[in-house]
Order: sequence, then structure tokens, then C-alpha cells
Amino acid sequence: QDDVVTLAHGAGGEAMRSLVDTLAVSRFADGSSADTAGAVGLAALDDGSVHPLPGTDISIVLTTDSHIVTPPTFPGGDIGRLSVAGTVNDLAVMGVTDPLALTCGLVVEEGTPTAELDRFLESMRESAVEAGVDITTGDTKVMGAGELDGIVLNTTGVGTIPTSEVVTGAGLSPGDAIVLSGTVGDHGIALLAEREGFDFGANLESDVAPINGLVAAATDAGRVTAMTDPTRGGLATALNEMAEKAGVGLEIEEQAIPVDDAIASAGEVLGIDPLSVANEGKVVFGVHSDDADSVLAALREQPLGSNAAIIGQVISDHPGRVVLDTGFGNRYLSEPTGEALPRIC
Amino acid sequence: QDDVVTLAHGAGGEAMRSLVDTLAVSRFADGSSADTAGAVGLAALDDGSVHPLPGTDISIVLTTDSHIVTPPTFPGGDIGRLSVAGTVNDLAVMGVTDPLALTCGLVVEEGTPTAELDRFLESMRESAVEAGVDITTGDTKVMGAGELDGIVLNTTGVGTIPTSEVVTGAGLSPGDAIVLSGTVGDHGIALLAEREGFDFGANLESDVAPINGLVAAATDAGRVTAMTDPTRGGLATALNEMAEKAGVGLEIEEQAIPVDDAIASAGEVLGIDPLSVANEGKVVFGVHSDDADSVLAALREQPLGSNAAIIGQVISDHPGRVVLDTGFGNRYLSEPTGEALPRIC
Ligand SMILES: Nc1ncnc2c1ncn2[C@@H]1O[C@H](COP(=O)(O)OP(=O)(O)OP(=O)(O)O)[C@@H](O)[C@H]1O
Ligand SMILES: Nc1ncnc2c1ncn2[C@@H]1O[C@H](COP(=O)(O)OP(=O)(O)OP(=O)(O)O)[C@@H](O)[C@H]1O
Ligand SMILES: [Mg+2]
Ligand SMILES: [Mg+2]
Ligand SMILES: [Mg+2]
Ligand SMILES: [Mg+2]
Ligand SMILES: [Mg+2]
Ligand SMILES: [Mg+2]
Repeated sequence: QDDVVTLAHGAGGEAMRSLVDTLAVSRFADGSSADTAGAVGLAALDDGSVHPLPGTDISIVLTTDSHIVTPPTFPGGDIGRLSVAGTVNDLAVMGVTDPLALTCGLVVEEGTPTAELDRFLESMRESAVEAGVDITTGDTKVMGAGELDGIVLNTTGVGTIPTSEVVTGAGLSPGDAIVLSGTVGDHGIALLAEREGFDFGANLESDVAPINGLVAAATDAGRVTAMTDPTRGGLATALNEMAEKAGVGLEIEEQAIPVDDAIASAGEVLGIDPLSVANEGKVVFGVHSDDADSVLAALREQPLGSNAAIIGQVISDHPGRVVLDTGFGNRYLSEPTGEALPRIC
Repeated sequence: QDDVVTLAHGAGGEAMRSLVDTLAVSRFADGSSADTAGAVGLAALDDGSVHPLPGTDISIVLTTDSHIVTPPTFPGGDIGRLSVAGTVNDLAVMGVTDPLALTCGLVVEEGTPTAELDRFLESMRESAVEAGVDITTGDTKVMGAGELDGIVLNTTGVGTIPTSEVVTGAGLSPGDAIVLSGTVGDHGIALLAEREGFDFGANLESDVAPINGLVAAATDAGRVTAMTDPTRGGLATALNEMAEKAGVGLEIEEQAIPVDDAIASAGEVLGIDPLSVANEGKVVFGVHSDDADSVLAALREQPLGSNAAIIGQVISDHPGRVVLDTGFGNRYLSEPTGEALPRIC
């Protein structure tokens, strides 16, 4: 355990997981609520927790994210949209595509123009309408001048779902297809390009969007066995976590992973791997192999899923590892360690 | 509407309510979820929102608070205990005394000693055990060195309750007794005394504590018509808000309001009115007059309610106002404006 918190602890991936393990999981996860059948507690380290309501077949799903992003307005979105999409998406990948309510926990610095807050909250409203969710309660705290750089925006989401319809990040079985809902790297690379002030002669845009509609289309079209949203740590982290949780291997075809050309070139200039940075409007699905084509077709019919692709399959070899077929041979796709990644979200 | 956010906007009371009105209520509150019978939406500006589950007599209650406190460890508690108690208490005053789950949304600065986080999360754990609630999901973000002074800790809480048992802050009727669960001013004044470094020759301590057990004792003992926890803005704000929401007047006897002697003297030296600063382990109850004595007795049996008192009654005159009988005559007890108050939480 390190002595002080570093930026790597916030980058997703191994460093963060180990901090969260020591700080939170080892101490909170002995609670009782994870014991019920169908419950998903903290120890699962999933996108949210699941709470079956005694005497019913309904579960409550809960998820939270605090958002800090520099700059708070970026190509393709802003912190308001990010906060709504992030939380809607964590609920969606647990199976809750019709969320019940979101909270709005705002921490701002003295001296922040109210017009700026106005823009971010308007953006929250628009994204909430897009996702079909209400913002029903919140909190506002003000820190002194110089005490906070920017805004901290926490959104917590709650929804209900028939317990049997919950989808975890751990549900992969050998034979399942791995389906990705679209291109990867957009959010992280667009944001870094903006921050570095580079002009790449192309419109680099974050993919930030609520994807609960997209997820509903997929789960309606076939048997989805596992889901997660590849945010901090990117696709590489998401795939490794899914493999580890299910104790299976993944065989991924590098050429099949959709990456926007302009994003790929910008990533090269910036020295950032599109597979290792955050996405804010994408989903990784495990799909029963018989249903892979129908799920893919359903995704592609959706505006946010037009670049969806089958990128690989689940194997029983290499448990906990991701084997990347590069077209020239195989290598393990490892998790980014975080040290190399600038803070994005 | 002011052009920039000021500390007064974070102090509770009128300034904050007007900011929240403009930013959030006017824009979010047109959502649909508040239309259901029994629902409590954002426009109610209550301690949390209430979501009746269709086809059942059960509601989900949701509440959120972000916590920032200087110093993060103070006499009687720390930010970890504050975050758990604050959220448990907001659920409790909506009627949910057996909460389902809490989230832990941590934002820390690079360079924060992990031992410090460890202490705060251990304190969260202890307070959660005390309140009988599990912390089941969370989020950890790291800001760069110099970007955040201290720690931001968001806790969101969720619980379920038979819809008919929900208690709002708006339920007062003329004739009801106003019962206070104990002394006021402790948290705010202990914290300010600590911050100013004064030695008052007495052990000034915050009252921070989860009071869901206390609330359960009260609601079991008699008809509680309204509840709120007098946090930011103190008792004066809580009473004014309750009067305004119900369109009733309150007649409060100043001598009946319990204030610890040492807290009162320290408040005098510091120029802080115990009625206007935050409490973090207190409840204001409206109680059907026939049940006031039994509720009072039940509260006094609890360790956290030993100083409980009946402090006044609801009247139909002076709607929206609080009339304070000082013993020498009557005056309106007005809401603190926020400008005068240093930031406490
Ligand atoms: N401070 C914390 N306390 C309790 N649990 C935490 C904390 N931080 C993270 N976790 C848990 O760790 C797991 C991973 O969290 P993470 O924030 O990476 O998930 P995510 O929200 O899906 O991703 P992102 O934040 O990048 O959108 C989750 O199960 C989360 O509940
Ligand atoms: N940023 C926001 N967005 C939406 N609603 C908000 C926001 N800030 C505050 N509110 C709403 O305003 C009302 C008052 O909030 P406040 O935080 O004062 O309540 P509280 O949590 O009971 O008090 P405290 O924060 O002092 O513990 C609540 O109904 C809350 O939902
Ligand atoms: Mg997620
Ligand atoms: Mg997330
Ligand atoms: Mg609050
Ligand atoms: Mg409250
Ligand atoms: Mg509160
Ligand atoms: Mg998160």
C-alpha cells in the first residue's frame, strides 16, 4: 500500500482497484446485504450494487459517480452531460434501462459564475430528458476561493428491475461472443487533444451519451450474459476485469475493434492508446454465441450503435487474461497501470 | 440572481434556496415522477425524494449530501462520521429508519496520506454499523495537487418504506406540538471554536450521530406529522421552512429550546447564535398534540434524546412565520441570511 494517493489511483485499473480494496472493500464488504440471493454487494466491484426487495421479485440497483473534468466543457459534451450519462450508463449495464431517479450533488467554489452552473445544469437536464430519467434530489456545497479547482458533480442513480434480469460484469461463459457497441478512445483522446491545444485538422469529439436505449435494444435482441461500460482504464481494463471476474479467457481480434481514424491518429501523436483511455458512451457485451448476430444487428440499427462489432469470444484457456490477436500473432492485452495516463475524469 | 456563487449560497437558508430554485428546481422539477400519488419530488425541497413503486404499497426514498468540512477531524467526529450520519438522518426524517444502502463517493487530492483516508473510511464503517446500514457501492476520483483543499465525500442513501408511512417536512397542522430531540448549536459552535483555536475551558463537541434509532422510537410512540433535521441554517431555518411548507405559523418558547451551557457561552464569544448554526444529530418533530407527551417520553429514554423538549406549537395565525416568545415578549424568529455565517459543512 502506497503512503500517499497519486493520480494513478484515480486513473482506473490496477492501482485504483488496490486502493479501493484496502480502503473500502476490506472494511465495508462484511455488511449483511450481500448475502441475499440475487444481491450484488461491494465485493463484486461491479458497476453498481443490487438489492433484492424481500418478498418480491424486484431489486433496487444503486450506483454513484463523482465527476471532475478539465476542461469542464469539451468537444462533444460537458461535465453536466458526463455526470448524467455516466450514472445512467452504470445502471444500464446492470440491466436497468429505465432508471427511476438521479441525484445532483454539486460542490462549487466561491466566485464561480452562476451562468456557468446554469449551463452545466441545463446540460444535465437535456441529458436526463434524453435518458428518460428525473433528477429528484440534490445538494449544493460551496468551498472557499482557492479551495477547489473547478466543480465536483456527483450523480447517484437508482432503478428497479426484476431480479432475474440483472446482468453483472461477471457473467461470461466460454463460447460467448464479445460485442462492442462502437468505437473506442473517443472521449479520452478528444479531451486530451483539447487540453493540449493541438489542432488535428479533424473534429475530435467525446462519445459521451446515455446508452440505456442502446442497452435495451441489445438485451431485447438476445441473451446478454455480461455487460460493463469501459470508462476509466478503457477497453483494456474492462476486458481484463470481465475475464478475471468470470475466471475465463478472452480472445480478442485487434483488427475488429472499431477505432475512429482521426482519433487513432491523434492518439498516436499524443502517445495515447485508444484501448486504454476512457469511453463515456460505450458498452462491452458478453452475448450467448447463438444470439451474437441478432444482438449485433439490433445495436447497428441504433444511432449510437452504428459501429458495433463482434470483437472476440470467451475461451476457457488463459483464465483471467485477454489474448489479443494482432493479425501478426498473439499477445496478452494487459491493463494500463495508470501511471502513464493523464487524469481525464 | 447573483452573478457569482458566494459562501452564503452554501450556508443553508434563503440564499441557497434561491440558488437551488433557479438552478435546479425550475429546470428539473417538471419531470414526471412527482405526479404519482405519494411521490415527493424535487419541488417539495424536502430532505429526500420519494418514489412509490407502481403496483405496490412500497416507496423508494433517495437522498444525497456532499460533505466538505474544515478541519476534517473535529471534536466529536470527523468527515466520515458526518457523511454517514448526514445521509442516514435525511432518510430517517423522511420516515426510513432502517436504510437499505449508502454510497461512498470519494474525491481526494493527489498527495493525501492514505492513512488519513483510512481513518475517515474506518469512521464511516463504524457509523454505518451504528446506523445498521451497508455501504455497497462507491467511486474514487483523484484531483491534482493544489486542485482540492481537503476531501469531498458524497454519500447517497436509499431505503424503502410503506408509502403511507412517509413523513414529510410539510405535514404540520395547527395544534401539533413542536418537539426537538435535544440541544441545538453543538456541531456548528464546536467546529468554529476548534477552527478559531479558542480554549473555552470546556469540552465542546459536535453532536454528529445517526439518529435513525431515535426517530424510530418517536414514530413508534405517537403520531409524528412532520420531521426535518436542522442542519445548515440551524433550528431557525428548519422551523421557518416547516412553517412555510405547511402554510402555518409556529409559536416557539425560547426558554424551552435546550442549549448546552458551554455551547451557549462559546457561541456568545464567537458571535454565533446556537439557533442559526448546523446540528448533525438532531430532529425537529411535529407531533399530534395528544401524543406529544408520549413521544417526548420515548425520546428521553434514548441516549441521544435525553434533552428532548416540547418547544412550541403550531398555530393558524402568522402563516409561514415563526413567532418566538422570548419571555419578555414576542418577536419573529427569522432565517439567518447566510452572509454572517462562516462555512461549516
Ligand atoms: N470510495 C469507494 N468506496 C466504495 N467502493 C468504491 C469506492 N470507489 C470505488 N468503489 C467500487 O469500486 C468499483 C469500481 O469503481 P469505478 O468507479 O471504477 O466503477 P465505474 O463507476 O463503473 O467506473 P467510472 O468511475 O470510471 O465510471 C465499483 O464497484 C465501486 O463501487
Ligand atoms: N444541486 C441541487 N440539485 C437539485 N436539488 C438540490 C440541489 N441542491 C439542493 N437541492 C435540494 O434542495 C433542498 C435543500 O437541500 P439541502 O442540502 O439544504 O437539504 P439537506 O440535505 O436536508 O440539508 P444539509 O445539506 O444541510 O444536510 C433539498 O430538497 C435538495 O434536494
Ligand atoms: Mg461502469
Ligand atoms: Mg461509472
Ligand atoms: Mg443537503
Ligand atoms: Mg435534511
Ligand atoms: Mg442533509
Ligand atoms: Mg465510478
